[in-house]
Amino acid sequence: MSTPKKDYIRPLDLKHGRIDMNHGAGGRASLQLIEEVFARAFDNEFLRQGNDGAALPALPPGHRPVMACDGHVISPLFFPGGDIGALSVHGTVNDVAMMGATPLYLAASFIIEEGFALADLKRIVDSMATAAREAGVPVVTGDTKVVEQGKGDGVFISTTGVGALPEGRQIGGARARVGDVILVSGTIGDHGVAVLSQRESLEFETAIVSDTAALHGLVAAMLAAVPEGAVRTLRDPTRGGLATTLNEIARQSRVGMMLQEAAIPIAPQVDAACELLGLDALYIANEGKLIAIVAPEAADALLAAMRAHPLGAQAARIGVVTEDAHHFVQMTTAFGGQRVVDWLSGEPLPRIC
Amino acid sequence: MSTPKKDYIRPLDLKHGRIDMNHGAGGRASLQLIEEVFARAFDNEFLRQGNDGAALPALPPGHRPVMACDGHVISPLFFPGGDIGALSVHGTVNDVAMMGATPLYLAASFIIEEGFALADLKRIVDSMATAAREAGVPVVTGDTKVVEQGKGDGVFISTTGVGALPEGRQIGGARARVGDVILVSGTIGDHGVAVLSQRESLEFETAIVSDTAALHGLVAAMLAAVPEGAVRTLRDPTRGGLATTLNEIARQSRVGMMLQEAAIPIAPQVDAACELLGLDALYIANEGKLIAIVAPEAADALLAAMRAHPLGAQAARIGVVTEDAHHFVQMTTAFGGQRVVDWLSGEPLPRIC
Repeated sequence: MSTPKKDYIRPLDLKHGRIDMNHGAGGRASLQLIEEVFARAFDNEFLRQGNDGAALPALPPGHRPVMACDGHVISPLFFPGGDIGALSVHGTVNDVAMMGATPLYLAASFIIEEGFALADLKRIVDSMATAAREAGVPVVTGDTKVVEQGKGDGVFISTTGVGALPEGRQIGGARARVGDVILVSGTIGDHGVAVLSQRESLEFETAIVSDTAALHGLVAAMLAAVPEGAVRTLRDPTRGGLATTLNEIARQSRVGMMLQEAAIPIAPQVDAACELLGLDALYIANEGKLIAIVAPEAADALLAAMRAHPLGAQAARIGVVTEDAHHFVQMTTAFGGQRVVDWLSGEPLPRIC
Repeated sequence: MSTPKKDYIRPLDLKHGRIDMNHGAGGRASLQLIEEVFARAFDNEFLRQGNDGAALPALPPGHRPVMACDGHVISPLFFPGGDIGALSVHGTVNDVAMMGATPLYLAASFIIEEGFALADLKRIVDSMATAAREAGVPVVTGDTKVVEQGKGDGVFISTTGVGALPEGRQIGGARARVGDVILVSGTIGDHGVAVLSQRESLEFETAIVSDTAALHGLVAAMLAAVPEGAVRTLRDPTRGGLATTLNEIARQSRVGMMLQEAAIPIAPQVDAACELLGLDALYIANEGKLIAIVAPEAADALLAAMRAHPLGAQAARIGVVTEDAHHFVQMTTAFGGQRVVDWLSGEPLPRIC
């Protein structure tokens, strides 16, 4: 019983090494992966507690907790403007922010495929840590599992966010009222088209980058600009795009909507790419845009506040909430006609987030 | 613009239907899956908010939030005594409970493989909902993604729990002190051997069922029985088993441990199965057991409180914390010798949780 016991034989080979099943077994190899890749990148006082969870400071007085959760299975893992790591921070930070809450903490669950390159994992985790630091929302706890080759696809990341919501604030999908104004924070379709441009079978030349970004700063600026209650609904139009998200809100609020096609901001390259591929930008995922349904008297102030923020520079008023027993989202087209903008029903873009 | 628009063409075929890529696209098919499978099973006031996250009640005064997170990739999905659904509730409830906190809410992220049978999904979700109800910890928010056939393995479930920790309570892996007593709440190895018994290539006859269970009730009974501070460390010995978990604690607390092999409870069938397969029960995963490192003067009261609880009926005192600069976990064997009980270093049981 006097065997010398080093903690590890040698450090992980972060250049050429690969994930093997041992990294998910919960023993010494798991600990090494956590310490040399995850803990090093995310380093904060909560992870340093080294327990099965994180004990967090009490929420600010007069606030209630908010929880939001998002799985990320985007393919490819790296795309123009981001990667699954940054996306997994932004996606969940945004879900918390869309409740009108301040995002505070993230938990992250990694499901990694055997054989995945440690260099790619490190790149993703480092990007995630940078995104978390930039957002001011630390990853305070996490978990790592490994599945056999052919039972996963590189890495999947599920993140859960906790935020603080001021008592009395009520922002939600069921609160849109007839006469409210519909705002969008910028051009739509950028994320989906940027990802699509990287898919092997569909590669095309384009300067489009994903809009992936954390929107809680923009939300804070908006909420500071108008009286409590003026912002009825906030949503980030991810999967299914602007059209599907508006249909969800119309259904929840039991209202209709009338959009102005000409008012919806779309970057020319996205427009061109959609035409080329036979896609409709209204259904393409965004990861750094929000829709706000707002009281008509607050719309100008909100639009100004959005445009004054770097992530809302191209914000626009795109329509109004109408009375409609069918909860249709309709659109006045650029040619002056009208059409129903239905839910996404096909699958133009699988694994877009 | 007068097309009649039903919400869905027809209900999901929960008997013969299968998951397709549309169920993950965020449109109408996603909504239908969420409503007919997830929302129906988990139904609660928070999910009914229908937003991107859940706004929760303020925590009780004098409490801070705790977050814990666990990915579940167990194979097979159904095993004697449980399934991935129940396990994904128990695993995260237990991680929160091991902090000494009361588990309150769960978030769940599902990553489903295209082609997965809706009947199996429903069975798993229903089991998860039952486990959540029994634990009194509702699933308040969630997310569903679908990956192509061959890019996943049925379903992976990541859960994140939020709990409430009384101010001043400090239970953690770094708090074990020399002279403390090591308790375990019951027999070890049951979960791992039960799962192993189902693996196609290793099927053998056994009456062993997984011990998967939510331990927060047991923890509450223990904490009520002794003064604050008497329980230093709580851990559920999952992946890597009792041996690895004790090594982790020894490392964090910078202590050694001396176990009594004869005192460690192991069911005879587990013992027999381990012998047959050449496995060591000390390294086999548990999902309904806890290790408690406790002040020596509180050990008897804690053992009595554990034994009075249905999930601690076979609780035992299995060793003591020692001074050891190497942080070795040692064991006095049944034959009176001594050996070092090292970390798990191989991979006896991949995807055990």
